[in-house]
Amino acid sequence: MSQIVVFSGSAHRPLAEKICSELGQPLSPSQTVRFSNDCLQVQLLANCRRRDVYIIQPLVPPTQDHLMELLLMIDAARGASADSVTAVIPHYAYARSDKKDASRISIGGRLVADMLTTAGADRVVTMTLHAPQVHGFFSVPVDHLTAIGELADHYRSRDLTDTVVVSPDLGNAKTASLFARLLGIPVAAGSKQRQADDKVVIDAIVGDVAGKKAIVLDDEIATGGSIIELMNKLEEEGCTEASVACTHGLFTGKAVERLRDHPSITEVVTTDTVPAPSDWPDLQVRSVAGLFAEAIARIHAGESVSSLFDGVDPAHAPPQPKLPL
Amino acid sequence: MSQIVVFSGSAHRPLAEKICSELGQPLSPSQTVRFSNDCLQVQLLANCRRRDVYIIQPLVPPTQDHLMELLLMIDAARGASADSVTAVIPHYAYARSDKKDASRISIGGRLVADMLTTAGADRVVTMTLHAPQVHGFFSVPVDHLTAIGELADHYRSRDLTDTVVVSPDLGNAKTASLFARLLGIPVAAGSKQRQADDKVVIDAIVGDVAGKKAIVLDDEIATGGSIIELMNKLEEEGCTEASVACTHGLFTGKAVERLRDHPSITEVVTTDTVPAPSDWPDLQVRSVAGLFAEAIARIHAGESVSSLFDGVDPAHAPPQPKLPL
Amino acid sequence: MSQIVVFSGSAHRPLAEKICSELGQPLSPSQTVRFSNDCLQVQLLANCRRRDVYIIQPLVPPTQDHLMELLLMIDAARGASADSVTAVIPHYAYARSDKKDASRISIGGRLVADMLTTAGADRVVTMTLHAPQVHGFFSVPVDHLTAIGELADHYRSRDLTDTVVVSPDLGNAKTASLFARLLGIPVAAGSKQRQADDKVVIDAIVGDVAGKKAIVLDDEIATGGSIIELMNKLEEEGCTEASVACTHGLFTGKAVERLRDHPSITEVVTTDTVPAPSDWPDLQVRSVAGLFAEAIARIHAGESVSSLFDGVDPAHAPPQPKLPL
Amino acid sequence: MSQIVVFSGSAHRPLAEKICSELGQPLSPSQTVRFSNDCLQVQLLANCRRRDVYIIQPLVPPTQDHLMELLLMIDAARGASADSVTAVIPHYAYARSDKKDASRISIGGRLVADMLTTAGADRVVTMTLHAPQVHGFFSVPVDHLTAIGELADHYRSRDLTDTVVVSPDLGNAKTASLFARLLGIPVAAGSKQRQADDKVVIDAIVGDVAGKKAIVLDDEIATGGSIIELMNKLEEEGCTEASVACTHGLFTGKAVERLRDHPSITEVVTTDTVPAPSDWPDLQVRSVAGLFAEAIARIHAGESVSSLFDGVDPAHAPPQPKLPL
Amino acid sequence: MSQIVVFSGSAHRPLAEKICSELGQPLSPSQTVRFSNDCLQVQLLANCRRRDVYIIQPLVPPTQDHLMELLLMIDAARGASADSVTAVIPHYAYARSDKKDASRISIGGRLVADMLTTAGADRVVTMTLHAPQVHGFFSVPVDHLTAIGELADHYRSRDLTDTVVVSPDLGNAKTASLFARLLGIPVAAGSKQRQADDKVVIDAIVGDVAGKKAIVLDDEIATGGSIIELMNKLEEEGCTEASVACTHGLFTGKAVERLRDHPSITEVVTTDTVPAPSDWPDLQVRSVAGLFAEAIARIHAGESVSSLFDGVDPAHAPPQPKLPL
Amino acid sequence: MSQIVVFSGSAHRPLAEKICSELGQPLSPSQTVRFSNDCLQVQLLANCRRRDVYIIQPLVPPTQDHLMELLLMIDAARGASADSVTAVIPHYAYARSDKKDASRISIGGRLVADMLTTAGADRVVTMTLHAPQVHGFFSVPVDHLTAIGELADHYRSRDLTDTVVVSPDLGNAKTASLFARLLGIPVAAGSKQRQADDKVVIDAIVGDVAGKKAIVLDDEIATGGSIIELMNKLEEEGCTEASVACTHGLFTGKAVERLRDHPSITEVVTTDTVPAPSDWPDLQVRSVAGLFAEAIARIHAGESVSSLFDGVDPAHAPPQPKLPL
Repeated sequence: MSQIVVFSGSAHRPLAEKICSELGQPLSPSQTVRFSNDCLQVQLLANCRRRDVYIIQPLVPPTQDHLMELLLMIDAARGASADSVTAVIPHYAYARSDKKDASRISIGGRLVADMLTTAGADRVVTMTLHAPQVHGFFSVPVDHLTAIGELADHYRSRDLTDTVVVSPDLGNAKTASLFARLLGIPVAAGSKQRQADDKVVIDAIVGDVAGKKAIVLDDEIATGGSIIELMNKLEEEGCTEASVACTHGLFTGKAVERLRDHPSITEVVTTDTVPAPSDWPDLQVRSVAGLFAEAIARIHAGESVSSLFDGVDPAHAPPQPKLPL
Repeated sequence: MSQIVVFSGSAHRPLAEKICSELGQPLSPSQTVRFSNDCLQVQLLANCRRRDVYIIQPLVPPTQDHLMELLLMIDAARGASADSVTAVIPHYAYARSDKKDASRISIGGRLVADMLTTAGADRVVTMTLHAPQVHGFFSVPVDHLTAIGELADHYRSRDLTDTVVVSPDLGNAKTASLFARLLGIPVAAGSKQRQADDKVVIDAIVGDVAGKKAIVLDDEIATGGSIIELMNKLEEEGCTEASVACTHGLFTGKAVERLRDHPSITEVVTTDTVPAPSDWPDLQVRSVAGLFAEAIARIHAGESVSSLFDGVDPAHAPPQPKLPL
Repeated sequence: MSQIVVFSGSAHRPLAEKICSELGQPLSPSQTVRFSNDCLQVQLLANCRRRDVYIIQPLVPPTQDHLMELLLMIDAARGASADSVTAVIPHYAYARSDKKDASRISIGGRLVADMLTTAGADRVVTMTLHAPQVHGFFSVPVDHLTAIGELADHYRSRDLTDTVVVSPDLGNAKTASLFARLLGIPVAAGSKQRQADDKVVIDAIVGDVAGKKAIVLDDEIATGGSIIELMNKLEEEGCTEASVACTHGLFTGKAVERLRDHPSITEVVTTDTVPAPSDWPDLQVRSVAGLFAEAIARIHAGESVSSLFDGVDPAHAPPQPKLPL
Repeated sequence: MSQIVVFSGSAHRPLAEKICSELGQPLSPSQTVRFSNDCLQVQLLANCRRRDVYIIQPLVPPTQDHLMELLLMIDAARGASADSVTAVIPHYAYARSDKKDASRISIGGRLVADMLTTAGADRVVTMTLHAPQVHGFFSVPVDHLTAIGELADHYRSRDLTDTVVVSPDLGNAKTASLFARLLGIPVAAGSKQRQADDKVVIDAIVGDVAGKKAIVLDDEIATGGSIIELMNKLEEEGCTEASVACTHGLFTGKAVERLRDHPSITEVVTTDTVPAPSDWPDLQVRSVAGLFAEAIARIHAGESVSSLFDGVDPAHAPPQPKLPL
Repeated sequence: MSQIVVFSGSAHRPLAEKICSELGQPLSPSQTVRFSNDCLQVQLLANCRRRDVYIIQPLVPPTQDHLMELLLMIDAARGASADSVTAVIPHYAYARSDKKDASRISIGGRLVADMLTTAGADRVVTMTLHAPQVHGFFSVPVDHLTAIGELADHYRSRDLTDTVVVSPDLGNAKTASLFARLLGIPVAAGSKQRQADDKVVIDAIVGDVAGKKAIVLDDEIATGGSIIELMNKLEEEGCTEASVACTHGLFTGKAVERLRDHPSITEVVTTDTVPAPSDWPDLQVRSVAGLFAEAIARIHAGESVSSLFDGVDPAHAPPQPKLPL
Repeated sequence: MSQIVVFSGSAHRPLAEKICSELGQPLSPSQTVRFSNDCLQVQLLANCRRRDVYIIQPLVPPTQDHLMELLLMIDAARGASADSVTAVIPHYAYARSDKKDASRISIGGRLVADMLTTAGADRVVTMTLHAPQVHGFFSVPVDHLTAIGELADHYRSRDLTDTVVVSPDLGNAKTASLFARLLGIPVAAGSKQRQADDKVVIDAIVGDVAGKKAIVLDDEIATGGSIIELMNKLEEEGCTEASVACTHGLFTGKAVERLRDHPSITEVVTTDTVPAPSDWPDLQVRSVAGLFAEAIARIHAGESVSSLFDGVDPAHAPPQPKLPL
């Protein structure tokens, strides 16, 4: 069996180090140079020949630079005669560009998937795509991990009486439904309406939230605008306390102050698929490094990755506490 | 500008004839042969050289035969030196296979999209894909039409007081939301739970339906099982009368008797993307042939197809009655 | 070396079981579902990751369903990170669509070959293609097995005095020639003339058959029409007794009664590349499962497959009894 | 409609000139340079931008040089922004490498087809492929012309009493069958046996030739060895006079003297798909330049090319004298 | 003939406007949105269907953002059924990554070329690639323009006695040679030596520069470091006055002050392939908008683009003043 | 790990034998047949299944035949289920066609690279490409070896006082620069001017050569015309003695007599990437078989190939004597 070599782009080195540590593998060095004309070059500083190469890079801001760095690393590994190149993309940001909601736009999630293949990626490992259909944008095998079990573990030991899972958007309520069933509690959802290209309002809460405590669940939080909008609507409906959970906690713009200082938000829970903001000590960060390490180990050993999530997705097995790895 | 040649597979010739009639073009003949070993062969009986060829075929049962017939026609047109080949697929049935909801399955919607490209399709025209992300499965341009305006026209002149649009599934509630806003009424949705691979129950209605009349909206109705399940739940919640509307009315298995004879269902409205069952005179069928004809005409003339739907999708323009074509 | 995993589509499970039994490998389970809109879905129920996957499926009626099932299985195996996917297609029915004998038709044999590659097949193992050129339709390696030795074994111990091998078609007489040389007897052939698209007559027998016993050899028998036509012509020429042999015995339509009851046909010999008809106990079926098992074993062990047929094709070695495997 | 530009490689410039003359188009100049390291370079000396470019080059000896020259010209035309590039290959020599008749060889006919596509050919126009299946080796449209009508015209006015068409090879007897039906006379064929890789003998004539005059028909004659072998066998069978006809008269090695001086060969008829030998004034050469010109004209005008051969292939229409163009 | 539609990315809108103005075409609007997760989306705000679309975008800093914006625009145009999509990239910055000068790096110029093709570019128009071989990185037609004639025009009317063209790098001296011959003066070059990955010194001037005035010519100037290094070496060799000319004047980092304030540099001449720095009024900028407009016009009209440069490249014609367009 | 199988085309069998001998592997047999129509066929006579196949073939005259033979062998190996196919091309002659120096020509180096990929090459091993950018023409990994260390070894022990390395062409002077630094001596270069398509003159020597001894270094010598031209110019400049070194010594046309008999040329040094002329006993040939064998061994063992050249390319490490292998 060929050896594993793991590299990290510059987007989130601490996660890569943690994954390698769980995996019992060194993180191999690379050097990214920015030329004076702003073009990037990456040199991989460990032998790739006949190795299975894994390159870890979430697509976080500056997103385009991190994407290009990833593409250059994939191409370099392929050109260096790697046996296989796996792009480990804990946060695939372009998944949000998943449909043609206006005429003459690109479906960016598909375009970037094709670019990764063009550069030479043989496989992609990612987590919590914005929509499950984005899996189908890739022409190479994708191992699509979920943090839903990890996030559920945060709440399992608590008293969840009178608690309801709330999705900010009816259109994405399926995961919230699943999450609610994992915790054995009901679900509600906001009905979003886009008033203009840059203005979305939540005009109703579908489901009963009055007098309840909410667990607001979203896949990605960027500026936190939708969450605040939802909190306001929840308050109107008589729900005045919420724990906010998400897989990808980007917290860009004014997100940190908005969420940290909001009177009704009791806590914010996220994972380390992306770097945490530096100025928010109370943020609850649950690590998914173990999940990624286990997935890589299973990929390499030729073991099933899907069985890693038995008990998480009730479509396949009844809800149960997360299995020990 | 090259000439148009339109062919029809054997799935739904009356629709093809109607589209041609609206388009002012003849429907060109073709001959499908089934060899004694069950292989198909199709001969196109009109010159394709330097023409823009359109082949009309919804993927209705027997689905695999109709798919193969379509692929053979596309390949034949390409091999006959067509300038371009457009697959007009009013119902793209494999769109339902849009994600990996179990391990080691194919995402059939992507596979069939790739097969169409392999056969030589340069463009696809389709209607109401099960999920909008399926658009991104295609590597060729897709003109994705919607019947939502046509279905809304059915209800516009009515008294819609105390009426609510109901989606059978939270996960697909976005279109129901849009439809409700087109009609100026509220929306509700069922929360589906899959108990086994072949058993789905609706365990709750999210939204207020008590004492209201429902317009149940779905993209495709096959056996009608989900609709009946939803009707039962609606009754429990105090909603005892519903009009059922869908774009793709397949009505397979016991669907006709189930829906026709259900005491709470006042009417069923659908379109002619697929052939109507022969034994259901009361079924309300609204034709989308005009929309397809207009789309083909605009494609050929190099005019915008998206503007055909101004006023339908409130993301782009405020709701208004359907524009005359 | 990676492990072998073998799956079977639903076309001919007994053959797959026999191949697995000869191979000393279990047949791994899979589940094929037909959705209510007639779309298929197949789930492979054994881990494919880093395995060499073999999927066994002859293209027998309903041919389009079996083809689509095969494509879905290939795509599923690829998406499940198989090291390689080999389509084992004992009867590649679309090989008959191997040329453009009318304008504006698809060369189906090439189209299906491209579809298999699009779905993710890395290699094809097949038997007795209708024309040897069909091998060149595939862009992936093909191991093309022959049943000619197996069929010859049926006749070797007999008295072949005054026996002649007869090909129903001059255009495909090369294999009959080879078969005749294996048995050390002469060859003759019918001269087919197509009078209309659906009507073929044999207007002459080229070669001497008067007073002889015939062994009629064809690659595939479907309705048996050509064979009956040939028998009539043979009788006219004074040849009143024939043994009929073919590799792919589909026996569709009225074939069974036509051949079973024909006074001049003494026996019909075929192989198990396709399922035998249930109502024909006298049909002589020779199994090719051993040949397929041996081919798979050699592919896996990296041994030559072509040497499996030394002595069969006199182009490469003088005729001799079949070598023990 | 874009303009036509026609170039010729150096293989057979007189044919290209004749085609252009029939077409009423100038033959555009190009310059082929052989560098001192034997690499070729071709410069097209007429503007190709937005033109439909046709490049005429039969693959005659030195075959590899002519093939490479053709590929360089195709690539140059594509790189010069041609609207389309059509390779006109009157003799596609690699069609003889159409199957895997030994292990571990390339199917050259498929490889060269893929190389033409890689270089940028959008369409191929060719004549009398060694086997009709070779058509399926190409992934681009092929217009496959036949000289059979042209050759038949040579014999139509003659007295064909007691004349038989003879194919040197049972395996390719289908075209001879067709040719015989065009002339209303019977057919016979040699049964070839390969004794070693470089030695083929004809061990029998299948069909009745005693006391008859033969028209021997082959697709390509190179050294003429098979023809001489056949003539000897024909003499043994009592047929002592033959007219020899072929589409591609390469006449390499000792072919000219062998055929010209053979006592039983009364004449040799061929076409100008390849250059005629200089030392054979009695060779009957019928020009197919008109057929190629007409095909190019129809391709350009978007007219059917297949209808050019109505009456030639009795599969589609009853035999009749060649239609005036 | 299809219509032209021209869009501009946000890299250098004034150049796009100038090209459109010369072309007599409006610049069509587009809207680039940066989502809160830093992903980009571009909507083309003019109909592209059946149009020839040109998208103008030099790859200037922030290079990755401008590259991604360009790719999204190309993909959007293709998805909107454009007849053809031409990427007009006046400065192709990644051309500097043209070889593997260290192990395990990507050849970025090839990777980006493949990405442009993946996104859907049918043609590229660019100027002064860092090395002429980069042309061969593209699999689509490239129209490679040169500014050498435009820059030469700047010097033609001057007294060039005792003037020498100096290339900073022996390895790229060919263009300087050509430029020198256009002006009828001699050439010299620096011999660069890389001492470490980030440190290059010029250790010698090859050619005679003592007592002469230099015209230093480079393709791209970024920080100006090489130029300053060269100026110092030139001074050592007795050449104390230089005019500096380049096609792509990026002037990043401290370039402006370094070059503007250098005592021996009398002037700096560049073109508008990239935006000029705002704080350098004395910079001589010669516009190449006319060349791009003329190239686009000729591409559209199907006229030769190469003839636009007759007289510029003495390989094809003797030096002469630039031809009027 | 899969086994190695090495084949040789007919271009330079002695080199292949020497590489195999250094590698400790047998050279596997193959048989190349030239059909009477001049088409080639190659049969590989050793099992390739699941092996890593290496095919050794420099592109020397007759270049097109050797190229086609190589392509047929690659395709045969792929079709025979090789695990990987590596084309070992010691002299990639088409690298000289690396740019578009005239309009409407093919960039042959890119076209041939694409043809190799089309045939099935997974990797290329080559030496001293005419320009380093040609590496980027390949879409598969390339191991680009250099003979510069081997050639430098020839001169290391000598007294190099008053010796200068001279490149015949300014445009390719970078390698000469590197070579000079390896030997610790200065560099000069000729300034070539093309006067017509077939006539190049060297109009100046850039750098100081008067009274020195020259080592003229070129990558490839064909007719030797440029070298003689350079020698004349060197003499004019006062340099009357030169040793001539090149990697690829083709010595076509009158090269042998020109160089062997030239009064100022003291010796000619080359390598065995191509066969040496038979009539030149004094030619100094240094073998690179060891370098190729070592590269193949490292590729197979998954070791770094680039480290094989530490100390050779001063960009990466300071100059030093060649490392023992």
